Amino acid sequence: MKSTVAIHSETEKDADDILEKCKRFMSEPVTDVQVLQKNKEEMRTKMEMMILQTQAEFCKALAEVDGGTFQVDRWDRKEGGGGISCVLQDSNIFEKAGVNVSVVFGHLPEEAAQQMRSRGKSLKSKDGKLPFCAMGVSSVIHPKNPHIPTIHFNYRYFEIEEADGSKLWWFGGGTDLTPTYLNKEDAVHFHKTLKDACDKHDRKLYPEFKKWCDNYFFIKHRGERRGVGGIFFDDLDSPTKEDVFDFVRSCAKAVVPCYMPIVKKHLNDSFTSEEKQWQQLRRGRYVEFNLVYDRGTKFGLATPESRIESILMSLPLTARWEYMHEPPKGTKEAEMLQVLRNPKDWAQ
Amino acid sequence: MKSTVAIHSETEKDADDILEKCKRFMSEPVTDVQVLQKNKEEMRTKMEMMILQTQAEFCKALAEVDGGTFQVDRWDRKEGGGGISCVLQDSNIFEKAGVNVSVVFGHLPEEAAQQMRSRGKSLKSKDGKLPFCAMGVSSVIHPKNPHIPTIHFNYRYFEIEEADGSKLWWFGGGTDLTPTYLNKEDAVHFHKTLKDACDKHDRKLYPEFKKWCDNYFFIKHRGERRGVGGIFFDDLDSPTKEDVFDFVRSCAKAVVPCYMPIVKKHLNDSFTSEEKQWQQLRRGRYVEFNLVYDRGTKFGLATPESRIESILMSLPLTARWEYMHEPPKGTKEAEMLQVLRNPKDWAQ
Repeated sequence: MKSTVAIHSETEKDADDILEKCKRFMSEPVTDVQVLQKNKEEMRTKMEMMILQTQAEFCKALAEVDGGTFQVDRWDRKEGGGGISCVLQDSNIFEKAGVNVSVVFGHLPEEAAQQMRSRGKSLKSKDGKLPFCAMGVSSVIHPKNPHIPTIHFNYRYFEIEEADGSKLWWFGGGTDLTPTYLNKEDAVHFHKTLKDACDKHDRKLYPEFKKWCDNYFFIKHRGERRGVGGIFFDDLDSPTKEDVFDFVRSCAKAVVPCYMPIVKKHLNDSFTSEEKQWQQLRRGRYVEFNLVYDRGTKFGLATPESRIESILMSLPLTARWEYMHEPPKGTKEAEMLQVLRNPKDWAQ
Repeated sequence: MKSTVAIHSETEKDADDILEKCKRFMSEPVTDVQVLQKNKEEMRTKMEMMILQTQAEFCKALAEVDGGTFQVDRWDRKEGGGGISCVLQDSNIFEKAGVNVSVVFGHLPEEAAQQMRSRGKSLKSKDGKLPFCAMGVSSVIHPKNPHIPTIHFNYRYFEIEEADGSKLWWFGGGTDLTPTYLNKEDAVHFHKTLKDACDKHDRKLYPEFKKWCDNYFFIKHRGERRGVGGIFFDDLDSPTKEDVFDFVRSCAKAVVPCYMPIVKKHLNDSFTSEEKQWQQLRRGRYVEFNLVYDRGTKFGLATPESRIESILMSLPLTARWEYMHEPPKGTKEAEMLQVLRNPKDWAQ
């Protein structure tokens, strides 16, 4: 990645106000505040502060629209680290809204190491052990109204120490939209907001990551994408840690402006029971993608001591599977399927 | 497997009445009737007739209780073979009842061959090609009333031709019950009926296959079995083809007496919306098992040209996932979970 302009705000660079910032988070940071203050220049600290801030800002925006209150669960992981899960369930606007932060460290499970090696990393371990640190914010929001789309995003940072003491690091992430019905204006707004966030850093990023997203969120056995896409990337490790962090922060900051205007626009849209049923069928497909293909879910389910409730909070409250369902030609449902089968460019 | 007594009925051994039997099937056999008549002594023919008969008898029993009519779909597979899917959806008693027969042949996909090698088969191929024939009957029945349990069964036969022309063959299968609420009497009836079917052949079979079932239908990430179990076996290839077929036929014949008395007993049980909701949560777990762990589903989704609608007919019409749901101690829901976490012996 070539970063053309690095965007920083002075307040964010000022680590002295870590304590001040923490007051606005959904919960105390996972890492002890004094440790964060001491290591304020390290990427681990910057990233943990950034993901906690992203969580807080998004939860605040969602709660404001919904009127409900997020359930906040702090959890510890035996081997090291923990997380903060914020969930709003069966509320006014949202069927299930989950925003999760995790900061975990210890030794990488062999299965995870193999997954990474299959993506081209050599990962030389000492006595089979690979000390690692992984942190990220991830979220899935399933609204009740079928005219408000589902959003998912995830931004994460990884560090691994190899046998010779050298440190590998990379960032990954993405934001994507899953509507029940196609609304072209919404799709354009969503993609343009993401494109703007990417273009600040390098105009090559959005087209590449938009394509990556279409390829990744693909339900192979159905021949359908999960939704209208967005951006997706992994293993981002150049040009510098700071540059990539700045880019990832821009993406994370784009979540609220990407999504909240769409939520507000459709808040009072009326809908029929047929539209609700189509939404439930699409929720079924969401479950299929997450349980069969999603890397994060598969990795989580295979990792001992992982917190299952936080991993599976991405599943909708309710879903439906009908045998041989195929919407008739010319319907809004068929229009949606058409786009899921043939992804479009929305931000031209 | 040591078969002590081989049970045959004279009429079933009489292949001359193939045509007569076909009249009672849900549809024409997958294989041309003349081919079946010509090869009436071959195991492929015997097995195809047996699975079609199992399908017809079970569908008839279900339709009689439900009052609805099964949708019957015949489908062809490009490379060879096809199937007959019978589905009753959103009907009077059943939310989704699927009974599927498939008879497929051609060359084994590499992924499938690897799965089999991992179970200990050598499978020497010629130019990477392994001619195979696989057939089976499989079924999942999801009733509406939470007091009627879900049943699943599957009986299958496999033939593979290795490079030197030698033929491998084996049978697999099983029948298992997934109640929403524990009814001890039902669990005992179900297991005893299966045990009787097994004991006719060898008294060692039921205990072994009951244990195999508890181990197989295990949702690892939840630490729960899918239901109260039943029997499960794979790679059964001794002492003789005829002996194993006789055993498998006994198991298949036990499906109706295993399940239908339980259905009839609870047909008019009243239930609350809370009980319906718990059923929906358990349906969510059913989806988790099928999409994350089930060998057949995974194999099907990974196989090109497989019929997705027949594979995924096992999914319930509706399902539910609640964040952090845990039934309070002393409730009927907690009692069910207790058994899913600690399987019991029901047929002592």
